[in-house]
Parts: sequence; C-alpha cells; structure tokens
Amino acid sequence: MSRNDLVELAKRRGYFFQSAGAYGGVSGFYTYGPQGATLKQNVENTWRERFQVREGHREIDAPTVMPEPVFEASGHLDTFDDMLVECPECGESHRADHLIEDNTDIEEAEALPIDEVEALIADHDLVCPNCGTELAGESVDDFNLMFETNIGPGDSSPGYLRPETAQGIFVEFPQLAEYARNQLPFGITQIGKAYRNEISPRNSLIRTREFTQAELEHFIDPNEDEPDIEKVADVELKLYPADAQEEDGTEYVYKTVEEAVEEGVVHEWVAYYLGVGKQWYESIGVDMDRFRFRQHLAGERAHYAADCWDAEGEIDGDWYELAGFAYRSDYDLSKHDEYSDDDFTVFKQYDEPKVVERATVEPDMSYLGPEFGGDAGAVADELEKLAERDRAAFDSEEVTVEVDGDEYAVPTEKTGFGVEEQKETGEHVMPHVVEPSIGVDRAVYTTLIHAYEEDEVEGESRKRLALEPEVAPTFVGVFPLMEKDGMGETAREITDDLRAAGFDVTYDDSGNIGRRYRRQDEVGTPFCVTVDYESLEEETVTLRERDSTEQVRVPIADLPDLLGDLRTGETTFAELDAPAPEQ
Amino acid sequence: MSRNDLVELAKRRGYFFQSAGAYGGVSGFYTYGPQGATLKQNVENTWRERFQVREGHREIDAPTVMPEPVFEASGHLDTFDDMLVECPECGESHRADHLIEDNTDIEEAEALPIDEVEALIADHDLVCPNCGTELAGESVDDFNLMFETNIGPGDSSPGYLRPETAQGIFVEFPQLAEYARNQLPFGITQIGKAYRNEISPRNSLIRTREFTQAELEHFIDPNEDEPDIEKVADVELKLYPADAQEEDGTEYVYKTVEEAVEEGVVHEWVAYYLGVGKQWYESIGVDMDRFRFRQHLAGERAHYAADCWDAEGEIDGDWYELAGFAYRSDYDLSKHDEYSDDDFTVFKQYDEPKVVERATVEPDMSYLGPEFGGDAGAVADELEKLAERDRAAFDSEEVTVEVDGDEYAVPTEKTGFGVEEQKETGEHVMPHVVEPSIGVDRAVYTTLIHAYEEDEVEGESRKRLALEPEVAPTFVGVFPLMEKDGMGETAREITDDLRAAGFDVTYDDSGNIGRRYRRQDEVGTPFCVTVDYESLEEETVTLRERDSTEQVRVPIADLPDLLGDLRTGETTFAELDAPAPEQ
Repeated sequence: MSRNDLVELAKRRGYFFQSAGAYGGVSGFYTYGPQGATLKQNVENTWRERFQVREGHREIDAPTVMPEPVFEASGHLDTFDDMLVECPECGESHRADHLIEDNTDIEEAEALPIDEVEALIADHDLVCPNCGTELAGESVDDFNLMFETNIGPGDSSPGYLRPETAQGIFVEFPQLAEYARNQLPFGITQIGKAYRNEISPRNSLIRTREFTQAELEHFIDPNEDEPDIEKVADVELKLYPADAQEEDGTEYVYKTVEEAVEEGVVHEWVAYYLGVGKQWYESIGVDMDRFRFRQHLAGERAHYAADCWDAEGEIDGDWYELAGFAYRSDYDLSKHDEYSDDDFTVFKQYDEPKVVERATVEPDMSYLGPEFGGDAGAVADELEKLAERDRAAFDSEEVTVEVDGDEYAVPTEKTGFGVEEQKETGEHVMPHVVEPSIGVDRAVYTTLIHAYEEDEVEGESRKRLALEPEVAPTFVGVFPLMEKDGMGETAREITDDLRAAGFDVTYDDSGNIGRRYRRQDEVGTPFCVTVDYESLEEETVTLRERDSTEQVRVPIADLPDLLGDLRTGETTFAELDAPAPEQ
Repeated sequence: MSRNDLVELAKRRGYFFQSAGAYGGVSGFYTYGPQGATLKQNVENTWRERFQVREGHREIDAPTVMPEPVFEASGHLDTFDDMLVECPECGESHRADHLIEDNTDIEEAEALPIDEVEALIADHDLVCPNCGTELAGESVDDFNLMFETNIGPGDSSPGYLRPETAQGIFVEFPQLAEYARNQLPFGITQIGKAYRNEISPRNSLIRTREFTQAELEHFIDPNEDEPDIEKVADVELKLYPADAQEEDGTEYVYKTVEEAVEEGVVHEWVAYYLGVGKQWYESIGVDMDRFRFRQHLAGERAHYAADCWDAEGEIDGDWYELAGFAYRSDYDLSKHDEYSDDDFTVFKQYDEPKVVERATVEPDMSYLGPEFGGDAGAVADELEKLAERDRAAFDSEEVTVEVDGDEYAVPTEKTGFGVEEQKETGEHVMPHVVEPSIGVDRAVYTTLIHAYEEDEVEGESRKRLALEPEVAPTFVGVFPLMEKDGMGETAREITDDLRAAGFDVTYDDSGNIGRRYRRQDEVGTPFCVTVDYESLEEETVTLRERDSTEQVRVPIADLPDLLGDLRTGETTFAELDAPAPEQ
C-alpha cells in the first residue's frame, strides 16, 4: 500500500486523521479515531508487557512541561536545532538540509556546517518548493525545535514541552534510586507525549510535531553489570553495520544476539535490547522482511554514545527510523549532577570495608597568614588539592602552589602534610544508561502499512488489514443475518457476553453479510460471528476468519473460550476448520 | 490523614512528588513514581470500563497542542481568565479572588467584577502573603490561563496547550459523526493531559498546572433521546442542591437517581451520569461519607448549561471539586459551526418524507429595476425573507419592505408570490452534549486520602493504605522467610508465576517479616505471601490479608486462582480463614 492509500483508509476507518480539519487542519498534528486510539493502546500494552513487566522494570509518569534548567543541563537548549531557510518571496520556512538532500546527491546534509549549506544552496540554484523563488543568498539559521512557553504569569520562568520523555526520568534519578534502594541495576520506563516543533512535518505519523514515546532507561554499574544474554541469545538480527553503509552497499549481516556480542559487532547491552526489540516488533505484526537494525555512522552518533543502532521500517523502498537503541554512558546523569545541586550517583557498598591511604594537609595558618595576607586561605586550599593529586610534591623541603597565576612557595613543614589510613565502606558510582527509545506512532503506522493486503474473494478484489489478533482494535464482529425472528436479539446477547469476557466487539446489522465482512476486513477485525436461522434452533453460529475467509460452525456457549484460545494462539483456526478426528 | 502526611507518604512510597526537585522544584507539576503511575493507570482503566465500554461509547486520542482558532470559537481565548494582582515590592503574583476569600467573609469572589475586587483589596487592607506589602491601589488584571506557544517557526501560528480534553472531541465532531454513521446518540471519550497556567498552584495534586482528565461527550438529539434511567435507577445520591446552599445550610437531600429525576431535582441526563459516577467513585475506594454532589449556583453555572453538578470530596473539613457533570446544550457544537467552515449538525432522516408548504417569491425584475434602481436587488432579497417569515404580508395589494432604513412598497402581483409543496426527507439537528468531566489526579489523590488508616497491630501503631484490590498498584508481596535453604528460590518462582498470571507482584527479602508486612501495608498491598520451612515440605505458603492481618495456609498451586477470586470479589478472605466445613 502506498502512503496515500493508508492516509485515506486510516481516515475512513477511524484510525487517524489530521487534526482540526474544520479550521483547515494543522500541520504535524494527528487525532487517533476510535480504532486508532485502541490500536495504539494495545501496542503500548504489549510494549509495557515486553520491555517492562517481563524485564522487571518500573514505570513512572512525569510532566510534559519542564523548566528551563533541565534543558540547559541536557544540552537541548543549545543544540537541539534544525537548519531553517525562509523564502524571501512567499515567507515559507524550509529545512535547508532537506532541500539539499532532495535536490542533490548529497546525503546526511544535517551534519554539514551552516556556511557550507548556504554555499550548496547557491551552487545548486535551489528554489523555494512552494513558489519557485531562488534561495541563493538567503541566510540559513539554527531553529530550536522545542516548543517554548511560560510557567506562571510573566516571562521569568520559561518552560518547554519535553522533546523526549527521557529527561523526566533522568532529572528524577536521585528519587528513583531511593525507590530502588540504591541498588544497581534498575530500569525505569515511561510512555507519554513528546514534542518537536518541526519546520516541515512530513509523511503523516512519521514526522509529527506531537508524538508518543515509550522509553526505557536502564541504569547499570558499568564495571559490574552484564546483560542476561541467555534470554535472547537465539534471536536472529538483520544488521546493517556502519562499515557496510560506508561501503555504500546494502549488504546485511545476519547474526543471532549471542553471535553479535561474541564477535563484537554490537555492544552487549545494546545487543540485548535489539533482541527484545526484534521480538516485540515481530509480535505486533511488523514484517521482518521490511525491518532492519542500522548502526549509526560515526558522524551521526553522539560523542558520548559507545554504540547506537536504529530499528528501521520500510515503505515504498524508503527506510525510516522506528526506534533508537543507545548505550549513553553516564552522559545524562553527569550533566544533571553538574548543573543541579543534587547527587546523581549511587553509593555502592563494598562487600568488606577497604582501608585506603589518604594524604591530608593541615597548614600552619599562623605562618601562612602573616606571609601571604589575603591569599593565605586560597594557598591552603591549593595545598589540600595538591596533596590529593600529587603526594610526591611534598617530598621536598618546599612546596609550590599557584593562586591566580602567582606562585607561592611554602616550607613543607608548615603544610602539616601527612598520610592517614581511612576505612571506606563503599564508593559513589555514576551509573551508565542503556536506552531503548521507541516511537509509538511510528510503530502503529508500520503495523498498519505492513498489515495491508489486497486479494480476491469470490471474484471481487478485497482490501484487508491483516493485523495481529493481539493488537487488532476490534477483535470480533457480531452480525445477525437479519434483525428479525430473534436473530438480532441473539446477536446482541452474544455481543454483551463477549464484551463482558473482555473482547473488543463490534455489532453490525446494516447491509448484506458480504458487505459487513468486507467492512471488518478493512478495519482488520480477525474474526466475525454470524447469527442465522440455524442459530435459533441449534444454538450454534458461524465463525469466520478474516485472512482465509474460511467459516466453521461452533456452539454459542463455546465462543468466549474459543476466541480466547485464538487470541493467545493456543488454538489455530485451521485446527477448528479441520474435520474433527474420529473418536 | 492530613494533606502534609499524604505528601510525605506519597513521596516516600513512590506515589507522587513535586517534579524537578534537583532544580528547586517547579510549582504545580508532579511526577508519579512507580506506585503512583500504576495506581493512576488502574484508576483510568476502571473509568474506561465504567464510562466507556459498559456504556458502548468509543475513545479517541487528540493532540494536546491546538491552534488558536479552536479557542477563539470555544471562548477560552477571551474568557478563560483568573484575576491577577502583583506585589509592587517582591513581584510575586497572587490570585486576587483567593486573597479576598482567604481574608474576608466573602465567598465566590471569582464572580465579582474587577473594579469591585480592587476596591475590596483596598477596603480590607489586604497585603502580599509573601512579603506583607500593602496591595491597595495595585491594579487587578485578567490573566489567561492557557499556556501559549508557537507552532512552526515565527509567531504567525499561535498554539495553546488545551485547557480541557473536550475541545479535541468537539472540533472533530463532523468526522466523529461519520464514524457513528450520523446516528444519534453516540458518545466519545478521551483520557489525556490538560493544562492550566495557574497563578498560585495549591494542595499538591488538587490544583496543578498539568493534569489528566477523563471526559465523555455524549451527543444526543434533545428532542428524542432519553437516558436509560433503569440502569442506575436505584443508585442513592447525596445531593447538595443550589437552594440548600443559598440558605447557607448544609442540609443534604438523599434521593435515588429515579427519585431525583421524577421530582425534577436533577436534569434527567445529568442524573443518569451522577448515578454512573457514584458507582465508579465508590468502586475505586472513595469514602461515600466524604463524597457529595453539589449543584452549581446560578452565578456559577455557564449561561448555556441547563444543569450542572460537581462531585466533591472532603479532606480536613474542606470540600473540593472532583468532577463536573454538565448538560451543555448545543453550545460547543454551535460555536464551532459558527466559527469554522464545517457543518456541526447531524442530518436526521424522517421515517417517511414529509410534505411541507414553502412560500416563494419570484419578483418581476423588469418592474423592480426601473422602479428602485440600484436597490432593486436588495428589495428582491427582502421580499424573499419576508415570504419565509410572514406569508400573510402578501395578502394585501401591496407589500412593504425596508432596505437600509428606507421603505419600499411593491405591488403584490409584481412579487411573484406563491406557495409550493416540497418533500423533505429529514432535517439537520444540532446535537446537545452531556458531559461528565473527571479529574484523574484528584480521583487518585482522594483514593489515597480516604484509604489511609492508622491502627494498632501487636501493640505497635501501624499506617496502612486500605486501597481497593481493583486499583492497588501492587496486588501481592512475596517474601521468603529467609533467603537460604531454597526458600528464596521458591519465593522467586512464585513471583514469576504470579506475574505471568497477570498480577502486580513485589518481591522483598530484606528485613524481618514484620517490617516487610509494614512496608506493604503502607504501600497498600492487599495480600502478602510468605515462603517458610513448611513451604518446602508441604508446598504451602501463608497468605496474609492487609486489613485484618489474618493469615491462612494455602497450597502454592492454588495461589493464582485464589488471588484471582479475591481480586474480583468472588471469594472473601474471611471465607478462606474460616475452618473448612465438615465434609
């Protein structure tokens, strides 16, 4: 299916549509309709099950509006920019790097410096895509992608809509570590809205201004903690490493998680979560032939990240990012540790206290005071730092320290230098962070794109969404053949019973049965139940499977259990369909 | 429990705490810790079950950032204000109406005009609560409570964080009506973030700047649709009607939903949802002795609302709003119908086409033109309007119409007046809206406040959260008596099995058993399982109930089913506790 086909089907069937259409629509904002909202929730719940519950992590729920100091520390205020060029004629804003990528052979223009981008625009005679005006000579500017607002009256407290859910976890690390009783490793998850004020939103749910992320921050002791690779050792990964990309080929490398770790292709912690991620994407119906893990190129990767891989999905031959799996080292916590007054380390107790030697000074101030006047205190401080840093400096008769560029010589005997033994019960460890960061909307979009099929049924072409039963927003459609003779009543009773048993059910009595089947095929409903005349006599109904269009007759009383087994995969429809084995 | 006790317990046990504490905290923003995030989700899920699934409504998920035209239409841009007074000395901002209410006998100061509020501040010598400076003479200004931002580069597209989730539903009504096949009534729900830039946030989760709402917009045909009162007829309501409040008494009126409707105390649609609301608040553990429905006073109610009641909860003798149940007439849809280009009505087909008489004119322009010159067209238009309005005007020889203050007389025979029969297949109906609007954070807060108990166990005082099993974030704690001799292993196996069966389980092996019980009592965990030496031989464990502290021995193999029955209420702990009946 093409992107446009999806957009049309998504709107018609209640999956998603551009918001505020009554006011001309607003670019980069989408509303999930009844089917879409439920599909999204189902996708989130499977994520929670796989990345959180099964891994023993805990979830939090932090605000989407955060104060400026958080983003000063995180670096978003300074560097979370895109390159903007504005058309002098029509006033439309464009992403300068996208203009270059779309109109030249240059890739990754985002990484180029601004003056080079300006030169490329001039050299290639690039024009405004909206009105055709030449852009040569127009300035290219950094545009910060955070939505800004003010907290409280006045403008003294700027606030920003978080560009990622992660900061809501990092900034609360001291409190979260207490909940974990200061024991590493522990993981914190969050599912919630994040915002990027994109210059040019594109491709419906792929590049929006408001979106939902599901992020896990796994805090580990880099010296001690290792992932339990066993749990995902055999998961097959389709890898597109940096070197293969640099050779400009598309040679994939196929490895199990265990092989990838042993051969050093992927960092062990990242590999662990690639395994988890692969399992999860497969479970929600992403087509594994149109899915890969691509390693970040050296220029693309943040300087602090030891390794980073994106999950990518394919549509119309293009690959787009679905998720990032990064080893972020201690970058985030050390930044907040530096910028805030709180401690972002964990105190790790030794099994047994360690005895360590510690150099100390106790300067004779009755000597330093008269000698150095107002600088005496600073000299004493420098002596203390020197003792920690370089014990040997105190071996000579005289010790020299520098204060504001001036050198001060102090007789060693006046420094009170000595070495003591101290007992240490543990040490402060700055945890490292492993971060699987999943775009929920992109997962939903890919699930829909990859689920779309066209085939022929009874000589007519049919469109269908082959959604996995686990995520399909409507699990079963219930139809009376006709409303009359009690069939409507029976169908409504079945509907109520199935709803009470926890199934998402749709009731439909309009149009002929064939049309009702087609409607549910397009919505992606895995099963349909039809109540007919035989139902009234035999207490049975027909159960029809979406993908095969096969039908079987089953007792009404068995429906809840049977559908439950079909949902979990305990029974397959083919097993029902087969003639019962002879007794 | 006092408010402060809750704030302390909530932070210590992982329910909620003020955000960004590392940077001094930010007023009006809270982060839910692991227990709180799960409690909130459980509360949301029970709401979804009661207000949506059981009522047959559908859910959507709309953006939190919305463009300006939406709020021009909704009226929020003009009138969603609080009264602000700023201290000339320390610069602190205060809500002027709160200053008056806190320091005088005046209630509902919010409803007063600004000049009166300024006069009251001067008359009562009110001072800045922060620094004591006199505020007399300071101007009081309207402050709009919406957080403002810009969509895209530049400031040509202002956007606002939605002050209520409702607008995300109203603005998409034309599309949502299509999903409902243009059949009234239908209901749309949404659970999501909403924002109010409060001047002075207060009382932790009660008045925050970012919060979660669960709203239902039930669209009905005011001429035909009636609520199915039967379903909640017998639900008892504790009502505090407007007249009782005006008499300054606190005489409550106790009525069933059915009585309230029959006696005209509550609008029938509002009464229906008060019944649903009461059932829901009770189910999540809100104490019905500290819960009431208060009718809006005439001055408090929006002019378009036929009836409006708040659910209120009590703490420390104060009542605060938990939810609003309003009959909003066609106000919201008609505003968007007026301000946008879309149609916000539903076309309602008649059972049979109706034949109606319609008066028409076809003025003789060859007469009107020479006679009235440039005004001829306007005269023709006025004739047409007159024919629709007042057929009898065409009974005389001459018809008179007014154009721009001038009267024009036209011989009736030149108007081409006639009456035709037309067939009409239906009519456009502007639906009315019934809106239960629930504050999720306030529900969570009240659930915690009302669940708190102190009692004595074995001579020691104990704190406990008597949370309902349906919403408790941790359902069962599993403890090995000691780690050794395989007890730790068995306890971990039980933990895994219970998690696989869908229970929220906490595993705890630190401290003595008594301390572990106390910890779970304070978290609000309904049940604890302890693995001891007997467990290893007999394959049984002790199961302990939080509230009674009673313990029974049960087979390990029975745990999942048993706990499932305890959660749904199919079994009570007292039944387990009783000696088994003789066979």
